[in-house]
Amino acid sequence: MKRSFSLAASLAAVAAPCALTPVSALAQQAERPAATPREIADAAPPSDWTEIAPDDLMIITLAPTETGEERQIVIRLMSEPFAQGWVDNLRTLTRARWYDGLWVYRLVDNFVVQWGDPASDPDSGETPRPLHPGMLTPPASDYVHRTGQTMPVIDPCAAGGFSAEAICDNFAPAAGFREGWPVAWDATSIWPVHCYGMVGVGRNEAPDTGSGSELYAIIGHAPRRLDRNLALVGRVIEGMEHFSALPRGHGRMNTYEDTSDRTPIRSVRLASEMADAPRFEYLSTESDSFARMADVFAAGTNDFYTVTAGDTDVCAVPLPVRRASE
Amino acid sequence: MKRSFSLAASLAAVAAPCALTPVSALAQQAERPAATPREIADAAPPSDWTEIAPDDLMIITLAPTETGEERQIVIRLMSEPFAQGWVDNLRTLTRARWYDGLWVYRLVDNFVVQWGDPASDPDSGETPRPLHPGMLTPPASDYVHRTGQTMPVIDPCAAGGFSAEAICDNFAPAAGFREGWPVAWDATSIWPVHCYGMVGVGRNEAPDTGSGSELYAIIGHAPRRLDRNLALVGRVIEGMEHFSALPRGHGRMNTYEDTSDRTPIRSVRLASEMADAPRFEYLSTESDSFARMADVFAAGTNDFYTVTAGDTDVCAVPLPVRRASE
Repeated sequence: MKRSFSLAASLAAVAAPCALTPVSALAQQAERPAATPREIADAAPPSDWTEIAPDDLMIITLAPTETGEERQIVIRLMSEPFAQGWVDNLRTLTRARWYDGLWVYRLVDNFVVQWGDPASDPDSGETPRPLHPGMLTPPASDYVHRTGQTMPVIDPCAAGGFSAEAICDNFAPAAGFREGWPVAWDATSIWPVHCYGMVGVGRNEAPDTGSGSELYAIIGHAPRRLDRNLALVGRVIEGMEHFSALPRGHGRMNTYEDTSDRTPIRSVRLASEMADAPRFEYLSTESDSFARMADVFAAGTNDFYTVTAGDTDVCAVPLPVRRASE
Repeated sequence: MKRSFSLAASLAAVAAPCALTPVSALAQQAERPAATPREIADAAPPSDWTEIAPDDLMIITLAPTETGEERQIVIRLMSEPFAQGWVDNLRTLTRARWYDGLWVYRLVDNFVVQWGDPASDPDSGETPRPLHPGMLTPPASDYVHRTGQTMPVIDPCAAGGFSAEAICDNFAPAAGFREGWPVAWDATSIWPVHCYGMVGVGRNEAPDTGSGSELYAIIGHAPRRLDRNLALVGRVIEGMEHFSALPRGHGRMNTYEDTSDRTPIRSVRLASEMADAPRFEYLSTESDSFARMADVFAAGTNDFYTVTAGDTDVCAVPLPVRRASE
């Protein structure tokens, strides 16, 4: 399988904020035996990359910008065994064209962008769009996956550092990666976590009120206090800036005071519904390449770094995703 | 001292992403004995708030938007004993009007916004603006403050949770807060850390090459690997969205391919230079109010949360700042 060279923006972040790394420095890196995280990902064998199923790709097309720029956002939907009731709802609503003509209507700086039907809020004063029949009502207990067995929890904090298997975590006994997702776990359950770009299901105060009519994505520092309190159903893998660079809201709950400031959603489609859908693949978090990439990332990525913590946190590690081609 | 009610946006983030907390829920919170983090901050006595000196406030005015919206960003400059050589450079360059007419020229999604003189990059092909005389050249060793004594490092990770005194941290033996700043420390030194909105000095590959001619602010998940590798000189305390919502760059090193896409900097001033400068105060991180606010934040902020980690990380805790008035 051949593929393009456009790695996810997360890997671009490996560059330093100077950033202005001179070409000479790049040349030095090429001479060093230790490759950069990006070089390791680029050099990973095809078997270390896993294609994402077309039914797991949700493609949101926003109305073009005032200058005519097209805006497309691609979300990878959450893998089994997590949150599959809500994911099924998202597929049902998408196939029914339920999201088409709705809006991105709420932005809180360093927190979330939110889209869907703002009238899902009973205090909005607006009339909600009737939900499509066939919606599931998953219980709040599905915010985590219960493994049905006692899991060995390595204590990664006591182990004194980072490994691709388990990362010390302030919010759970351990954190790490599964099939390209950032997760955390305890002795009996495992759950995805609220890193940048992760997509969740908005709800009202009762924990079992989220259908999928309102969705949010994280646009700031990981608000991990949300873990296990909301259903995470995916992650933005392309076009994140079309969400993150939208104007912030200054009305009630950081919605827009003037509803004309909302960004219209032209369409939402599954890649499996489209004739010319883009294809994507992720660097398997179970692969040797990923383990080496993450090690190098934690240890410092190039000569720019004179001090390294030798550690990282689960939301700081880039999870490479790229377009695939035959 | 009276003050306005505009808390920093960071506190707004305490609201859940539903977000849509019904009014009835807010009423319930008012009846509960445990106040919300915001209520605790609002109710803090005047003695728990500390005014920021006018010489420590840098006010950046960008060119207005195409629709005429004014854009002002306020940065609190770093407190002693941290990075004072660079902070002095920033004051010198500001008083010399050196930044006026330069640009915001680089944005990397989930990483940094960068402004100043893009020609500081030797590979830019542009002619740099001559630096004002009187620039200091602080050594890279000043990225941390050496305390000159052995500090007791409580092991907050072993202590099993969060306290306002010390937070478990993946990147250092301990983390916490000093005079409104997020910091980390080991047995002999202490340093500010790269949380959202923190402002640093760009440099080339050699660690002692940063003058202040290029500055960056963090616009994503805390890139803590930068700690101790760059000089942190402040934090955005108002107007962050005028940075974070700017279009991302797609040229070399995520600068803009078309230089006309840069956002012009109309002026940079110290509040101490202005007749009608706004005044700001921060909730003292040494106060009882802050300790209670942080406790409640870590424990879960309202009835929306059914699961709480009972912990947080140093970059997730809101550090309240607000406008002050006589």
